[in-house]
Amino acid sequence: MSVNPVPTLSDLARQQSTRREFLIRSSILGALAPLSLSACSDETGERAERKTSTPGGAPPQVGPATAVPNANSSLDTGGHANLHQSTAGAAGQAKNLAFRRYNPELPPVSQERNLKLQFTAQEVPLKVADDVTISAWTFDGDIPGPVVHVRQGDTVEFTLVNHGSLPHSMDFHAAQIDPKIAFRSANPGQPVSFTFRAKFPGVYMYHCGTSPVLMHIGSGMVGAIVVDPPAPLPAAKEFVLVQSEYYLGAAVGGVLPFDYTKMLATLPDYVVFNGRPGQYMGAPISVKVGDRVRFYVVNAGPTHPCNFHVVCEQFDTVYLGSPPAMPIRGVQTFAVAPGGGLIFEMLADVPGEFVFVNHGFGHGQKGAIGILSVQA
Amino acid sequence: MSVNPVPTLSDLARQQSTRREFLIRSSILGALAPLSLSACSDETGERAERKTSTPGGAPPQVGPATAVPNANSSLDTGGHANLHQSTAGAAGQAKNLAFRRYNPELPPVSQERNLKLQFTAQEVPLKVADDVTISAWTFDGDIPGPVVHVRQGDTVEFTLVNHGSLPHSMDFHAAQIDPKIAFRSANPGQPVSFTFRAKFPGVYMYHCGTSPVLMHIGSGMVGAIVVDPPAPLPAAKEFVLVQSEYYLGAAVGGVLPFDYTKMLATLPDYVVFNGRPGQYMGAPISVKVGDRVRFYVVNAGPTHPCNFHVVCEQFDTVYLGSPPAMPIRGVQTFAVAPGGGLIFEMLADVPGEFVFVNHGFGHGQKGAIGILSVQA
Amino acid sequence: MSVNPVPTLSDLARQQSTRREFLIRSSILGALAPLSLSACSDETGERAERKTSTPGGAPPQVGPATAVPNANSSLDTGGHANLHQSTAGAAGQAKNLAFRRYNPELPPVSQERNLKLQFTAQEVPLKVADDVTISAWTFDGDIPGPVVHVRQGDTVEFTLVNHGSLPHSMDFHAAQIDPKIAFRSANPGQPVSFTFRAKFPGVYMYHCGTSPVLMHIGSGMVGAIVVDPPAPLPAAKEFVLVQSEYYLGAAVGGVLPFDYTKMLATLPDYVVFNGRPGQYMGAPISVKVGDRVRFYVVNAGPTHPCNFHVVCEQFDTVYLGSPPAMPIRGVQTFAVAPGGGLIFEMLADVPGEFVFVNHGFGHGQKGAIGILSVQA
Repeated sequence: MSVNPVPTLSDLARQQSTRREFLIRSSILGALAPLSLSACSDETGERAERKTSTPGGAPPQVGPATAVPNANSSLDTGGHANLHQSTAGAAGQAKNLAFRRYNPELPPVSQERNLKLQFTAQEVPLKVADDVTISAWTFDGDIPGPVVHVRQGDTVEFTLVNHGSLPHSMDFHAAQIDPKIAFRSANPGQPVSFTFRAKFPGVYMYHCGTSPVLMHIGSGMVGAIVVDPPAPLPAAKEFVLVQSEYYLGAAVGGVLPFDYTKMLATLPDYVVFNGRPGQYMGAPISVKVGDRVRFYVVNAGPTHPCNFHVVCEQFDTVYLGSPPAMPIRGVQTFAVAPGGGLIFEMLADVPGEFVFVNHGFGHGQKGAIGILSVQA
Repeated sequence: MSVNPVPTLSDLARQQSTRREFLIRSSILGALAPLSLSACSDETGERAERKTSTPGGAPPQVGPATAVPNANSSLDTGGHANLHQSTAGAAGQAKNLAFRRYNPELPPVSQERNLKLQFTAQEVPLKVADDVTISAWTFDGDIPGPVVHVRQGDTVEFTLVNHGSLPHSMDFHAAQIDPKIAFRSANPGQPVSFTFRAKFPGVYMYHCGTSPVLMHIGSGMVGAIVVDPPAPLPAAKEFVLVQSEYYLGAAVGGVLPFDYTKMLATLPDYVVFNGRPGQYMGAPISVKVGDRVRFYVVNAGPTHPCNFHVVCEQFDTVYLGSPPAMPIRGVQTFAVAPGGGLIFEMLADVPGEFVFVNHGFGHGQKGAIGILSVQA
Repeated sequence: MSVNPVPTLSDLARQQSTRREFLIRSSILGALAPLSLSACSDETGERAERKTSTPGGAPPQVGPATAVPNANSSLDTGGHANLHQSTAGAAGQAKNLAFRRYNPELPPVSQERNLKLQFTAQEVPLKVADDVTISAWTFDGDIPGPVVHVRQGDTVEFTLVNHGSLPHSMDFHAAQIDPKIAFRSANPGQPVSFTFRAKFPGVYMYHCGTSPVLMHIGSGMVGAIVVDPPAPLPAAKEFVLVQSEYYLGAAVGGVLPFDYTKMLATLPDYVVFNGRPGQYMGAPISVKVGDRVRFYVVNAGPTHPCNFHVVCEQFDTVYLGSPPAMPIRGVQTFAVAPGGGLIFEMLADVPGEFVFVNHGFGHGQKGAIGILSVQA
């Protein structure tokens, strides 16, 4: 949970060509003033290439949201948008990035009942598939950020240090605290700190709450915090899956920037568990026959439900609220709302390769798929 | 709950210019025969302006629903479409309208165990933000209509008087009654009456059920009825939030008409609580530290879930069915289905400004946001 | 559950003209390589006609999913796409097809505790409305396939015989079995067999799991299996409703093929219960006053929730998991996730014509509507 060694986007941005800088700035300004994008419609180069690759020659889809003036940003959680500079692209160094699998295992619960925790906000290129590198906004350099694991009643003393070039902040869904103070944005180079007690057991989303929240969540500043109940749940192999949607623009220097206009159009390019499309297909999550398996599923959204399903299995337990109360039994698929988290349990009593998916296939099959390998 | 004094759209419509009448009629006919809109593609004026404002010069998005003949209206609930006249616009008087905050407080429960209730159907311009006036179809001149608050077992003798220029009707989700009779449409100038008993506690949607229902719900004819259980729930500050999506066309005389084709394309321009985007940001909902807060959340839709969430708080109680049975505890976010209603409770034990949102940000951040101010 | 006597698409395909063959092949290849469709943008004929019929002259909507290379198929459940031939169209014989209502009544529970069950995979034209014939991919020639009704603990020995021209397979959500073996694809002319025990009571989806799953589910290879608990639920009139979304391309020989690109764009042309838009409007589901009515609702998707609602009624029981545990009471509308199934019960104590709908009207009103007639 310290500073990630990869070059930050702010490092890379200094080396951009004028042409690329223009495109990047256009893209990010689009987040605040989508109408200004129309000025780009006659552009050539990357943008033109992208248009040509659309079936039927159709121009990129644009949501009706832009047809009527709508000060989205002023309505947003933060209320104080300060997107003063672009970071939505990166250059040559991206080639040297390695793909890393995100470890889905729930880390052990903190031994500290008063946990000191520090994250950094970083804007970095992230290789999420062999041929896909994105310009990620992150906690600690990854999507999702580190999994936090505490016990009900624990105190978390949290500090975010902003190593990015934009204001960022932290919103823990497990906290009960005045957000106006605690979840305020840290300017670049600055820290923000607050303390909270984890009141309810469950799995909760965390995310950057800086305006526009849609952009900060949609660009990767999300993660999960698991809060154990006082009496442990039944022994199980425990995994954390955070679903995110990726809405990407044309590559700049081999790196795909997030695209706010596409976020508003709500048709994602990828839907992923733990940041990478289909990463657990080739490198499955592995358990043994007889294991109880517990998935902590957070849906970071920003928009679509995660209709969680394991092929050829049923969940014997789904907790809609804090465990262990009110479990529902015998569930094939249940939707985790964007901004929500649910706990799914099954008994791995049959060996085999069980595919887990978001069964809303129009979106889900764009990467929200993996294998749970149950070994004899 | 009497006739609203603002000019009705039917009043205003008489003063429309020929040019505007043409556009209005085109727009409303589009609801029944979307293909006819193609005749407008070479039009100039308002429609042309709107096309120009779309990024990339793309024409307005059109849902595939229109690519295949589909007699939507004949499949609709009412089954007897009678959209004989346009009201989807309004003129100069709109300038004089004032913005009014919708009071979110649950009104006291009716003292009558046999409540006589009369609403009017009205087509009126409604100022929902300083710079946004819409041509609303309403109950009693507002979106949502008046909140009804009764007790389980109460009888409601309901009359709708149609002051509009189109047929309208009333569908209470809390009623158990033959809809073919009770929820029949009233022609302009006519009343319709029926009586029902509120059988189940909970919060229920009501709406106009006249065909096409999508148009009548989407244009604002929605509201909430709260049915208390016989034994009162724990004392709380109680609020009603009705989420609606707004799909708007180009302004006519300063007033934005609802757009049926955009409703089918399902990308709203605004998503609002109680009819106004972000109205509780500047004028928060206010409670005191130690108060229990109960939100009765109805999702009028017409299409997207309301993923209800309070920033920096958790609900200690969510009722998925009639209260007080089967509460779930420790919930960060839960989706209210379109056409549904759920009750969310939290203890306001921390002072601060807690933002409540639809956490499905691709749609939700277009106005479904407000502040719960918890004062020390 | 034997071979359906209507001509299969593979029969019909032999009689296609060269021109049509080209279009069909383009369409199906689009499922695997959407970008190749751009080659068709200058085509005339059927494709051109379709473009012209779009309001405003807009080109067909294309999801952003195609703007960035995304090997959807390789991420899909099956992982071994083998779409070697097109069947997405049909010719003249389609004219002779008759419309048949799908019987929504739950068939009696199997008397066999060890049920031998055989389905065929068939690609056939299916008349789903007087003026709408689609090129369906089916189990046993219909959408949905046959309803299976067993008891908890029953064994099902299942065989799928592939009478189609593409690989197909079977994925029962009620099974617990290694999917890599059991749910493998059968090549044309071949069978695949497996055996499973129904472990949890409830209503479960079944579907073809061959890659791309989105295409196989979206083209109609879906159905329901009901698993009774050991102790019977309260006596009731029982019905099965399977919701599907239809995404259709331009007619070829009077038959509408499914369109994978539109599936990815997630704006359906029709949303239907039991395969036909609005089939229970003219021919209602009929019960008597005093009957308990139980709906087993499966949402086959592929994408949108089914926000199930009966106008003017409330469900006194909804089972979120296996019945009879944890019923929720007093529900107006509840969302069935795509890939999920829920059981809804109500007491038909009032005579009348009660419309049941998907209350997410932007999608739902495109056919997901019917009448429950409660007769005195």
